[in-house]
Amino acid sequence: MSRKQAAKKPAGAEGAGKAVEELHTIATEIYNELLDGQVPKMTLPLRTKANIRFDPRASVWKYGSLKGVRSAKKLKGALMLLRTMYVLDFIKEMIDGSKSSTLREMYYISEGWDLGKFHSQDESNLLAEDLEIITECMREDFKLRPEESGASVIGNITIEEVTRSGERRRINCKDDIGDAGYTIPYNVEKEKVKFVNADAKFILAIETGGMFDRLVENGFDEDGKCILVHLKGQPSRSTRRLLKRLNEELKLNVVSFTDGDPWSFRIHASVAFGAIKTAHISEYLATPTAEFVGITASDIVNYELPTDVLTPRDVGALNAELSDPRFKDEFWKHEIELMLKLNKKAEQQALAKYGLDFVTDRYLPEKLGELGLMR
Amino acid sequence: MSRKQAAKKPAGAEGAGKAVEELHTIATEIYNELLDGQVPKMTLPLRTKANIRFDPRASVWKYGSLKGVRSAKKLKGALMLLRTMYVLDFIKEMIDGSKSSTLREMYYISEGWDLGKFHSQDESNLLAEDLEIITECMREDFKLRPEESGASVIGNITIEEVTRSGERRRINCKDDIGDAGYTIPYNVEKEKVKFVNADAKFILAIETGGMFDRLVENGFDEDGKCILVHLKGQPSRSTRRLLKRLNEELKLNVVSFTDGDPWSFRIHASVAFGAIKTAHISEYLATPTAEFVGITASDIVNYELPTDVLTPRDVGALNAELSDPRFKDEFWKHEIELMLKLNKKAEQQALAKYGLDFVTDRYLPEKLGELGLMR
Repeated sequence: MSRKQAAKKPAGAEGAGKAVEELHTIATEIYNELLDGQVPKMTLPLRTKANIRFDPRASVWKYGSLKGVRSAKKLKGALMLLRTMYVLDFIKEMIDGSKSSTLREMYYISEGWDLGKFHSQDESNLLAEDLEIITECMREDFKLRPEESGASVIGNITIEEVTRSGERRRINCKDDIGDAGYTIPYNVEKEKVKFVNADAKFILAIETGGMFDRLVENGFDEDGKCILVHLKGQPSRSTRRLLKRLNEELKLNVVSFTDGDPWSFRIHASVAFGAIKTAHISEYLATPTAEFVGITASDIVNYELPTDVLTPRDVGALNAELSDPRFKDEFWKHEIELMLKLNKKAEQQALAKYGLDFVTDRYLPEKLGELGLMR
Repeated sequence: MSRKQAAKKPAGAEGAGKAVEELHTIATEIYNELLDGQVPKMTLPLRTKANIRFDPRASVWKYGSLKGVRSAKKLKGALMLLRTMYVLDFIKEMIDGSKSSTLREMYYISEGWDLGKFHSQDESNLLAEDLEIITECMREDFKLRPEESGASVIGNITIEEVTRSGERRRINCKDDIGDAGYTIPYNVEKEKVKFVNADAKFILAIETGGMFDRLVENGFDEDGKCILVHLKGQPSRSTRRLLKRLNEELKLNVVSFTDGDPWSFRIHASVAFGAIKTAHISEYLATPTAEFVGITASDIVNYELPTDVLTPRDVGALNAELSDPRFKDEFWKHEIELMLKLNKKAEQQALAKYGLDFVTDRYLPEKLGELGLMR
C-alpha cells in the first residue's frame, strides 16, 4: 500500500462519506496485497522532527518528503496493520451508526481486539493521526475526538448547529446565550456548524478566562465591534479550526490577546502558523494572517505593568523561539530580545493595576488602533 | 471588632445589598475603635485543620469554636487591617458600579494601594475568605470570582439567567443550546439564575468530559429522564452551589458518576459533604443526600473492567479516607478496602470495553436501578 500524500488541502469538509471511501481504499489495498501473495505494508511520511519544515510560502508547518514503510515482515509491523484493520472497521461502524467516540474510548474498545489491543493510548492516538495523513481526511471525519473542551464565543454572530437530534438550531452568540457564552462542539466542520451572519470587524482570541470574562462584562464585543473567543490556554484543534473558518469565510481578521511570556507567544504561533504535532493539517488549522496585540515586552515597559521574573525554563523557551522560523521577523526578534533583557514577564490581568476598565478604555483601543482595527 | 460567627446559613441569596451593609459594619467598628483610642482588631475563627470538625447532624464540615485575633498592635496585623479597608472600599465600588472582578484582578489592583499591596495572591484570596466568614456573606456577593469555569448542563430544565445587559433570558437546556450544553455563569445565586421548570427525576453529576459527551450523544438525559451536569474534575464552588440549589428547590436527587479511584471518591465527598477549604459555607454548597453510582471497586470486579495499578500516592489517599469522617459508613469502608485489596483503579471510560452503548444500555440502568432511580 502506497498512496500519494501532501495534497493542497485535507478533505475534511466533505465529511464522513469521503472518509469511508478512503478507509475502504486502505483496506482494499492491504487485502489485494495479501491476495497477490505479497507482504502487506503501508507507506507514510516519517513523523520525526527532521521531516517537518516551515513552508515560507504558505507560512505554516508541513511534512517533508521523507517516507517510512510499515511492513508485516516484522511482528510489530504486522500487529500495527492488524490494529489498523480493526480501527478501520470501528470507524466505519461509528459512521454507519451516527456515533462518535473519544480517543480514550477507542483505546478501551481495543480491549476486545485480542492481538489488536493497543498497549497505550499514545499508540492509538498516533494511529489516528497516521490515518489522517494517509487519507487526507480529518480525525473529525473519522468521528474520533479528544476530551479537551472547545472555545467559548460571545459576540454578534449567528451560528447554525446541527444538534444530536439532527435539528438545525440557530444560536446568536449575543442574544440567545448566557453570560458564559456559546461553547463550540468538538466538530466545527460545515456539516455540523454553519455561520449564518455576523456583525463584527474582527475576532479577538483571548488566552485566559479571567480576561475573557472581563471583556464580556465590559461589553467590549459591542464597543469594539468584535467577536470574543476564549482560547482556554493552548487552543484545541476545534478552536483553531473555528478561527480559521471565521477568517476564511467571513473575512474577519483574527487577533490574539495573551499573557506576555514565551508560552503565550507559542499559543499565538499555533493559531497563526500551526504546531509541529498537527503539521499534516496546518493549512486546515492555521490562520497565517492572525495578528498579535499583546501582552508584549514593550507593553511591560510602556504601561509599567506588574511583572514576574523569568524562570530558567522561560529563558530557554525564549532562546528557542529566536531560532524558530515562526518568529522570524523584526517584530518578534525585537520583542523576544527585549523580554530577555528585561528578564520579566507579565499577565493579561496585570492591566488591572490601573483599574478594571483600563484594558477596554485604553489598552485595547491603543493597541488595536496601531493595527488599524479601532479608532 | 468582634462579631458573632457560624450562624445557620450565610446570607448569600440576599445578595449585594446585605454585603454592603455587612462590610460597612466592619469599617464602622474599626473606625470607632480608632476614635475611642483603642487598637483596632478583628476576631475570626482559627483556620487551622484542628479547628475544622465534621458535624454529623448536618453531615458537613464546619469550623469549631477556636478564635484568633488580628490586631494592629503588630505591624503585620496593622497592614492586614489596612488591606481589609482597601478591599472593603474596592468591593463597595464594584457593587455600586455593577462590576465584578477575578481574585487575580483584585490582587493586581492592590498594586495601587501603597502599603496595602498584597504580596501574593494567596494573601488576597485568604482575606476574601476571611470576609466571608466574618460577614456570613458569600464571595459572590462581594463580586469576587475565581477563574475556574462552571459546569455544563444538558437536560430538560429551563433556566432564567439575568444577563450582563440586565435582560431576563430563558434558556431550556435541551432545546435552546448546542451539543456542548449550557455553561453556568460564575454566580448562580437566585438574583442571577432562576429555575423556571424541569422535567426530570434526578441529576447525574459526571466527572469527565468524555463520559458527559458519551451520555449526551446516547441521549441518556431523555432515556434516563435526568439532567446531566459536567463537574469538570474537582467541581468549582458555583457547580456545587448549583447542585445544592437543584436538590433543594426542585427536590431532585443528586447522583455522582466518577472514575473509580481515591481522588474521584473525594470529588463525590466534596459534592456531598463539603471540603475543608470551604468549611465556613458547607451548608451552602454541600448536598448531603447525594449518592454515588460508581465507578466502585465492586464494579471493577463485577464488570471485569480494564484497570491500572494503584500508585503509592493512591494507596496513601485511600488509607487517609478510611479515617475520614465523610467516608465513615459500611458502603465506603467496604469499597475502599476492596480497592486496596485489588490494588487497582478504573476510569469511567473503561466501560467502553463493551462498546459505546454499554454504559447507557446496561451499566447505568443496573446501578441506578439499585438506587431506585431507574427501572
